[in-house]
Amino acid sequence: MGSPGRRHDRARGGAAMNDIQRNIEYRVTHGHQRRPPLSRFLDQCLAAFKDDHSGAAANYIPELTKADPKHFGVALATTDGHVYDVGDSTVPFTIQSISKAFVFALALETVGVDRVEAKIGVEPSGEAFNSIRLTADNRPFNAMVNAGAIACSGIIHGAVADDAFEAIRTALGRFAGRSLDVDEAVFASEAATGDRNRAIAYMLRNHGVVDGEVDAVLDVYFRQCSILVTARDLAIMAATLANRGVNPVTGERVVAPHVVARTLSVMTSSGMYDYAGEWIYRVGIPAKSGVGGGIIAALPSQFGLGTFSPLLDSHGNSVRGVKVCEMMSTQFDLHVLNRASDVRTTIIADYDMNGLSSRRSRLPHEQTILHERHQDIRVLELVGALSFATIDYISRQILASPTRPQFVIVDFRRAPSITVGAARLFADCLREIASPETTIILTGLDTTSSVWTTMQRWIGELPKIRMFALLDDAIEWAEDQLIYRYGGYGDTTRKTELRDQALLAGLPPEHLKELSELAIERRYPAGHKIIASGEKASSLYFLLSGMVSVKLPSGVRLATLVQGMQFGEMALIEGRRRHADVWADTPVVCLELPIDEFERFCERHPASGERFSRNLALILAKRLIQANTKVELLTGY
Amino acid sequence: MGSPGRRHDRARGGAAMNDIQRNIEYRVTHGHQRRPPLSRFLDQCLAAFKDDHSGAAANYIPELTKADPKHFGVALATTDGHVYDVGDSTVPFTIQSISKAFVFALALETVGVDRVEAKIGVEPSGEAFNSIRLTADNRPFNAMVNAGAIACSGIIHGAVADDAFEAIRTALGRFAGRSLDVDEAVFASEAATGDRNRAIAYMLRNHGVVDGEVDAVLDVYFRQCSILVTARDLAIMAATLANRGVNPVTGERVVAPHVVARTLSVMTSSGMYDYAGEWIYRVGIPAKSGVGGGIIAALPSQFGLGTFSPLLDSHGNSVRGVKVCEMMSTQFDLHVLNRASDVRTTIIADYDMNGLSSRRSRLPHEQTILHERHQDIRVLELVGALSFATIDYISRQILASPTRPQFVIVDFRRAPSITVGAARLFADCLREIASPETTIILTGLDTTSSVWTTMQRWIGELPKIRMFALLDDAIEWAEDQLIYRYGGYGDTTRKTELRDQALLAGLPPEHLKELSELAIERRYPAGHKIIASGEKASSLYFLLSGMVSVKLPSGVRLATLVQGMQFGEMALIEGRRRHADVWADTPVVCLELPIDEFERFCERHPASGERFSRNLALILAKRLIQANTKVELLTGY
Repeated sequence: MGSPGRRHDRARGGAAMNDIQRNIEYRVTHGHQRRPPLSRFLDQCLAAFKDDHSGAAANYIPELTKADPKHFGVALATTDGHVYDVGDSTVPFTIQSISKAFVFALALETVGVDRVEAKIGVEPSGEAFNSIRLTADNRPFNAMVNAGAIACSGIIHGAVADDAFEAIRTALGRFAGRSLDVDEAVFASEAATGDRNRAIAYMLRNHGVVDGEVDAVLDVYFRQCSILVTARDLAIMAATLANRGVNPVTGERVVAPHVVARTLSVMTSSGMYDYAGEWIYRVGIPAKSGVGGGIIAALPSQFGLGTFSPLLDSHGNSVRGVKVCEMMSTQFDLHVLNRASDVRTTIIADYDMNGLSSRRSRLPHEQTILHERHQDIRVLELVGALSFATIDYISRQILASPTRPQFVIVDFRRAPSITVGAARLFADCLREIASPETTIILTGLDTTSSVWTTMQRWIGELPKIRMFALLDDAIEWAEDQLIYRYGGYGDTTRKTELRDQALLAGLPPEHLKELSELAIERRYPAGHKIIASGEKASSLYFLLSGMVSVKLPSGVRLATLVQGMQFGEMALIEGRRRHADVWADTPVVCLELPIDEFERFCERHPASGERFSRNLALILAKRLIQANTKVELLTGY
Repeated sequence: MGSPGRRHDRARGGAAMNDIQRNIEYRVTHGHQRRPPLSRFLDQCLAAFKDDHSGAAANYIPELTKADPKHFGVALATTDGHVYDVGDSTVPFTIQSISKAFVFALALETVGVDRVEAKIGVEPSGEAFNSIRLTADNRPFNAMVNAGAIACSGIIHGAVADDAFEAIRTALGRFAGRSLDVDEAVFASEAATGDRNRAIAYMLRNHGVVDGEVDAVLDVYFRQCSILVTARDLAIMAATLANRGVNPVTGERVVAPHVVARTLSVMTSSGMYDYAGEWIYRVGIPAKSGVGGGIIAALPSQFGLGTFSPLLDSHGNSVRGVKVCEMMSTQFDLHVLNRASDVRTTIIADYDMNGLSSRRSRLPHEQTILHERHQDIRVLELVGALSFATIDYISRQILASPTRPQFVIVDFRRAPSITVGAARLFADCLREIASPETTIILTGLDTTSSVWTTMQRWIGELPKIRMFALLDDAIEWAEDQLIYRYGGYGDTTRKTELRDQALLAGLPPEHLKELSELAIERRYPAGHKIIASGEKASSLYFLLSGMVSVKLPSGVRLATLVQGMQFGEMALIEGRRRHADVWADTPVVCLELPIDEFERFCERHPASGERFSRNLALILAKRLIQANTKVELLTGY
């Protein structure tokens, strides 16, 4: 997805930025490939820091000193799966300590929170990353220091034994969205010089934190540190954390949201070693660095950032990587605790059926019932990801109603996700409103959707809850119930006469008789396509019994009609081609009136023609008023 | 706002919860006052922990030992300004260390970030709150320990001298939304027993952190700790932090967003003393406690929580308060790093003018131009609070367009806020698309709106940007430009004839003549109200020259019409009262045709009547198609 754009970015490089600064007019008048501003910004970062050669490559293992100090790559992956990357963003290097965050997440996911926390703490250690000191109860301080990370590798090893490294490699690959390899030379170098980690591991086994063979656990640990990644991989891995555990590029759920929150917590308090307090204060984005020169930064719900530059500062953090993070944060006022949101925009529309209806046309006496009962159907259309606070707001809006509608329809079509806690609160809200008198209908969900699977746990067993895929179907069903309850349920098999047609109201009996003689009676079985979109439109139809639906070829329903209503009548006033299909929903009896015959009838009986056209104008005017009501609801005008 | 509900909550108390658990059926079948689920949940918290009498009241000053250990109050304030509160939520107690967070914020706001950071660090101290130890460069570790808090009071004192305490009392009152008092007895007790704090203050002056008179600074510090608050006050104060510095009840901006992010950062790393790592990991909500028995917890963009119970644990945190925070977090999976959002829902509609137009009706040749140029107006309607990530997504959507429309309209009507960084990125995006060929129009903003004031700094000087309050006005203006550019600009002062009326198309000349004799020519000056809503509808009008607008009494415009068009025609087919006003926008010449006369004309000339009605049906059908197009755009059907 990002590849062609990236190559393009790189070819233009920093020079393009200068063009822009020198002469905005030039580029716009002469046409140029337009680019998202963030893409340009990352180029700016690269240009700003590429000449900074301060710091030194890690030297604690010989292999890392071979890193090319000129390498500098930056990538940013958004939570909707777009990847920006600039510079050496596809150069591989070893992940080193950045693996700690992901292996901690994997441990939480694999054996559960309690078993991990029994062995590893969550407090900052206030010591160097390779300290052998443990907490008062002999646990590593946290999973971001070597002792805690080795304990994590030990937990995975305890769970899947010899498959432990493969499990880690696979999991990190799912975070990155591609299969990851190991740098065998770095692994060999780590293993050859790893005595301090051996000491830590034996100390852990002494305290029962590590149970398995120390050599086997350390083999896993050294290998996981030697996994090869690129800045682009890191960006996607970080974005998976920012996206509550779902890889935004592949769409795969890698870990659960509660695992992500815990992982980011430990990154926040201990991810940047003894620079943690400053980091959360100044940069404000949970991050983790590795001595291979990588840094990840994950801003929840916004993006993941991956940087690569091997020169490290005295804290062991990549000099240029830290600068990119700081520049991002400063330039765009980014901080994990600086959250904008407004719960009120969650409800895009909140209405009853006053002046509105489903797309099912109703007989006059049915319309009367629905008009009188318009307050008995209340619809709330939601938009956006649903949090605890937005659901609380929605709950209050629902419960604040002075009336108690018989049907409360909540539409989730534009709400792609809900947190577990929000789902629970929503279930409490439904429990509050559900009653023998109130039916709740949820629409815009299907049984595989993320929102439904999250909510199901809490509301699965609630009675009086129905689900419809389409809001319009739910409204129609609620209307049906009201009509039935208030005695208006009609029989669509009852055959009506031409004089019952709204379009023919006011025509004298002899003219109705003449029209019926000009028309041909048609009978269609349920499921028959009576009119096909694109056909020549040469007739209009009066429905005598049964039900038909007008649908677009895509299947979207425009209207459902019953006896006493006409269809195909738009042929009279515009175009000669059908715009939509008409299907028999039930067995249907109708009269087909050829347009030519009808036009001749109008010539013979202009007063009846005039009456007919005015009836048509009235029908259209009513539909227009309803459509305008809906537009006003949705636009807030 | 919350008061009546709160009293009601309290009257029902815990007993109601048991009812619910015992018999859901009972309450729903017999009718009950329905309550938001969060209100019930807080009752549950109260009931769950009220019998927990563990811990002890603070005893470091004698006055605090007098606290009633039975007191227990909880309040939660949402970012839309709703306050839930239960138990002893209006019992006053002293704020104590909770003041540190707010005075730190006040110091940042008063003298700026740099001057505060020069004197106070941001790292956790790893020591007790009353430690006298300073950092290696002789600063207090952070503003949440006594040394840092005294330094903050000193900063305020340095800035406003003798007004320092009043400045603090006023600022805290703005956070709480009411004027706050001091408990003089507690103040006297603090002052009398404050030798350790005196030692700290002198040490700070020794290192130049405090400049002023130690006694005066300590007087400010002791007084600020003795300010009386309630759990309800604390909830609103915390909600002001959660709401990026705007008190959600009063609507007042108390501090800037960057100050809030810094304050919450320090609360996160140091707010709960040596329990900070555990707190962010387990509870995940930035918090601060005080030995008076209060705790605040602020979940950004969601809510502020205030608890009061005087019994403290060994860390100095309120036992029951900590339990309420933990229960909230566990029950609803709340964690500041567990953020749900979906950038894609930010754009609620993205369309060009294919099948759409402004509410200004156009002459046929104008319609032709607009139809041919429909891709030259692109509209994006946004919804929700705008963050860095949503603006990045919007930027990519705008720039991904294969065509370059001459007008890009971005509607902010449903976007109530934007972060500073997002505004900056949006300015970069506008700079990318603005060109001599592309005009950007921002709608739904006024010059006092939060979004505009935030954006103005970045885009104020950009050329080719226009603002309209209403989206429809912007579309109309863009249409005008297109018509003008493509040679279609008409002259509304040119007088037309009846035969130019779309409604009369196809009528024979002698009938047109007859109609013109039945009608009365009317001339109105600009600004005249031609038709008033509610009036008897006894005429229809043919506009011969000039322009009129149809408006609701609220001022909302339904349509603008020019010569060749009719108005008041709906009187023919529905009702006999006017639904809207019609105003002359320019000097107007029109023909008023009384309905009675027209009906008699139709009786005399039924074929012309039929033609007229069919023309009317055609006009209505076109409007219906356009309204349905808009509904489809907004509903995604």
